[in-house]
Amino acid sequence: MSADNQQERLDSSWIVGFTDGEGCFHISINKIHKMSLGWQVLPEFRIVQHEKDESVLYQIKNYFGFGNVKINRKDHHGTRKEFRVRGLENLNKIVKFFERNSLKTSKKKDFKIFSEVIKMINNKEHLTKKGLEKIAELISVMNRKPKSKYLESSETIR
Amino acid sequence: MSADNQQERLDSSWIVGFTDGEGCFHISINKIHKMSLGWQVLPEFRIVQHEKDESVLYQIKNYFGFGNVKINRKDHHGTRKEFRVRGLENLNKIVKFFERNSLKTSKKKDFKIFSEVIKMINNKEHLTKKGLEKIAELISVMNRKPKSKYLESSETIR
Repeated sequence: MSADNQQERLDSSWIVGFTDGEGCFHISINKIHKMSLGWQVLPEFRIVQHEKDESVLYQIKNYFGFGNVKINRKDHHGTRKEFRVRGLENLNKIVKFFERNSLKTSKKKDFKIFSEVIKMINNKEHLTKKGLEKIAELISVMNRKPKSKYLESSETIR
Repeated sequence: MSADNQQERLDSSWIVGFTDGEGCFHISINKIHKMSLGWQVLPEFRIVQHEKDESVLYQIKNYFGFGNVKINRKDHHGTRKEFRVRGLENLNKIVKFFERNSLKTSKKKDFKIFSEVIKMINNKEHLTKKGLEKIAELISVMNRKPKSKYLESSETIR
């Protein structure tokens, strides 16, 4: 317990508000030869903070009871850390949490796509060419990202 | 009420979480000749968002029942809007809100300085040279800002 009481217990509404500000629902499709289709779908939930606030990332990890705190990047602004959740079992819990506790900003649209893709992965649709194409189209509008490596690949240009 | 229910009522914990992510307690000291000491202390509370999320700024304004939504800046990333509270009466209400609902990140330190300065202004200490100097020293460590115009002024270098 720190002197200024920053360690007090978080609640679900605080987590939603902080995620509306700082959270990121991210899905990448990466070229990996050992995968059956040659592509891996990698979904993750992240909250990034300057390392001076890493204690709050550990509080979030404690709240959920899973996930990891890792270095996000180091540059001239200092070191940034991230609370990160990967793996289908824990991401299903993240989806349930934000289904019960609704986001208030446009990040809710990213979450809807994210949860749709997680449900497709639960159904193993990402292991079919059709499912992979649908996932690539869905995630192309998330987080104002450039087109996925999958959609840009010469293998997949139709 | 938007189709995807983004307009549902906010609660205090969400506001705290969103402020921990996106809020800013800011105090500037500006040279104004009509003021008795030649300097004006201008405290404000701000939450900035891309204009695509301006609806959430209006929801925050509705929650508090005061403040304004204004343009923060326009650049190649688009237009950013801000929920902004100025004026001692409403800032006293903001201070009370965050005293009752504790911030969880290091922004809490900025808030503590902010609330101390608001209390000094309530006591009219900002109208004395000694009070103004104390305010300038207090705010010099907020928000990782450069030194205030007041502390850098040739009038005040001792």
